[in-house]
Amino acid sequence: MARIDAAKKGVDIETVFQDRLGQVAQDTEALLDHLLAPPPVEGERARPARLLDAMRYVGLGGGKRLRPFLVVESAALFEVSRQNSLMAGAALECVHCYSLAHDDLPAMDNDDLRRGRPTAHKAFDEATAILAGDGLLTFAFDILCRPETHSDAEVRLKLVSALARAAGLGGMVGGQMLDLAAEGRYGEVRLDESGVRELQAMKTGAILTFSVEAGAILGRADADSRARLCAFGRALGAAFQVADDILDREASAEAMGKRTGKDQDKGKATLVDALGVEGARAECGRLVDAALELLKRFGPEADLLREAVRFTVARKA
Amino acid sequence: MARIDAAKKGVDIETVFQDRLGQVAQDTEALLDHLLAPPPVEGERARPARLLDAMRYVGLGGGKRLRPFLVVESAALFEVSRQNSLMAGAALECVHCYSLAHDDLPAMDNDDLRRGRPTAHKAFDEATAILAGDGLLTFAFDILCRPETHSDAEVRLKLVSALARAAGLGGMVGGQMLDLAAEGRYGEVRLDESGVRELQAMKTGAILTFSVEAGAILGRADADSRARLCAFGRALGAAFQVADDILDREASAEAMGKRTGKDQDKGKATLVDALGVEGARAECGRLVDAALELLKRFGPEADLLREAVRFTVARKA
Repeated sequence: MARIDAAKKGVDIETVFQDRLGQVAQDTEALLDHLLAPPPVEGERARPARLLDAMRYVGLGGGKRLRPFLVVESAALFEVSRQNSLMAGAALECVHCYSLAHDDLPAMDNDDLRRGRPTAHKAFDEATAILAGDGLLTFAFDILCRPETHSDAEVRLKLVSALARAAGLGGMVGGQMLDLAAEGRYGEVRLDESGVRELQAMKTGAILTFSVEAGAILGRADADSRARLCAFGRALGAAFQVADDILDREASAEAMGKRTGKDQDKGKATLVDALGVEGARAECGRLVDAALELLKRFGPEADLLREAVRFTVARKA
Repeated sequence: MARIDAAKKGVDIETVFQDRLGQVAQDTEALLDHLLAPPPVEGERARPARLLDAMRYVGLGGGKRLRPFLVVESAALFEVSRQNSLMAGAALECVHCYSLAHDDLPAMDNDDLRRGRPTAHKAFDEATAILAGDGLLTFAFDILCRPETHSDAEVRLKLVSALARAAGLGGMVGGQMLDLAAEGRYGEVRLDESGVRELQAMKTGAILTFSVEAGAILGRADADSRARLCAFGRALGAAFQVADDILDREASAEAMGKRTGKDQDKGKATLVDALGVEGARAECGRLVDAALELLKRFGPEADLLREAVRFTVARKA
């Protein structure tokens, strides 16, 4: 395998990781560009240009595509084809991007910038941003149903089911609701540490967990491997969120391309509040260790997932 | 079958229809009440109370449940179990209700009343209404994936796929985008008759068509029956929309429990504009005839679907 060849040649794993991450980003971009092309497919009447443009604006042109990368790498443990992984990754990215567009809305976080460009409701208008989000969420399920995602309908259905649970009431959308409530919009709320963890596990953790679970589903992995990858995903998601909380507290607005310190401005609950910056760093370290431990049985084939953990907590921008 | 017994006993079909429609509404309400209960299911971490309340507010407590009725009746042509039909109907209703909640938002149609009660963003707030819609849309796919919807995973996947196409970019969401554009928000637009038809076929027709297509999918109907039911659904959807346009132009605000004449206020394009009220009535008659013609081969078993056509165009409130 290429990753092992790279190690043999003495190329360091971080370089390989960056290469692969970039490659997945490029492939995901190309795939979404293809899937979100103007001609309607069977069962569609037409693809209205303004809506398609907005969906492309939200879904294309940015992001590290960490989630698709996690799908590709976890699926690679079970020798799933790259095409299958990329399709599932593209679906996941539709969900991730829709959630950003809706989170940015004036009624929600009211953000004007995202990845250094105007948010969807600024680039278009609020109604279009809402519909683009609705359209992308719906499209994610459409993508998962296609035979290109997997030849076995049962596998595709499992992906749909797991994604719906991860993204819905009991996962991402529920987490977003808890997050708004934690701002005190609906009355005074004081989240303790476990409350913050729960919120984060739902808001960002559920979808990150699905990223690696998707690999196990695509690969028809045994129950133990699937459970182990899910546990890995939860640890990774939690580490990601603590790192993000620390970053938000400390990074400069310039380096981020978006407003920072905003969590604090809004009184959002973060683990940094509960544990302090040093405590949060220590917690992050513990989560990284737990995540790496869970990968042990997958051997060197999981090296890029290991690197993804380090990348996730070390990212600067 | 009960419907035939009723006919024998001389009970008129309209009474039977109203009975059955009421029964499906009651069963759908009970099923959604059960599905949207507080305890999280496997794969969910928790169901945040405010979000669940809002999803219940949007999804429960109202509506004639015409779409679930159409699922039940079209599925009955192929001897599908009532439980299977009701599950698919509940999923469909989640999509229908989410679309109403999002359509009512200030950035969209900005409606304060729906079915005589405050719209979701009035009863809760805008952010919660957006999330409740997102949650219901996601939940629809969750419902369709459950074994209670059908024992065959392939059938469930077909339902997911058809619903995603009907509800998405090339269907309902796309139609909503065209509808906003037709108001002139994004520049002057003059829709001709075929443009109005296309808009309506996407905005409301696609989901109504899915209602009867779902019956065919659940019943593993042959391709011809499925195509015939889809064509029936398209004619029914178009008739429904023309009737609604006529109703909006003529009914009083009191009888509707919501503002009327608003299509005209907003300069929305309707077939009444294109054809005049009398022309629209004639068109409605033609659509009804076409719909009934398509049901011919299903014999007396389709009597309640026939009655649904008459009900759809005759409804007063």
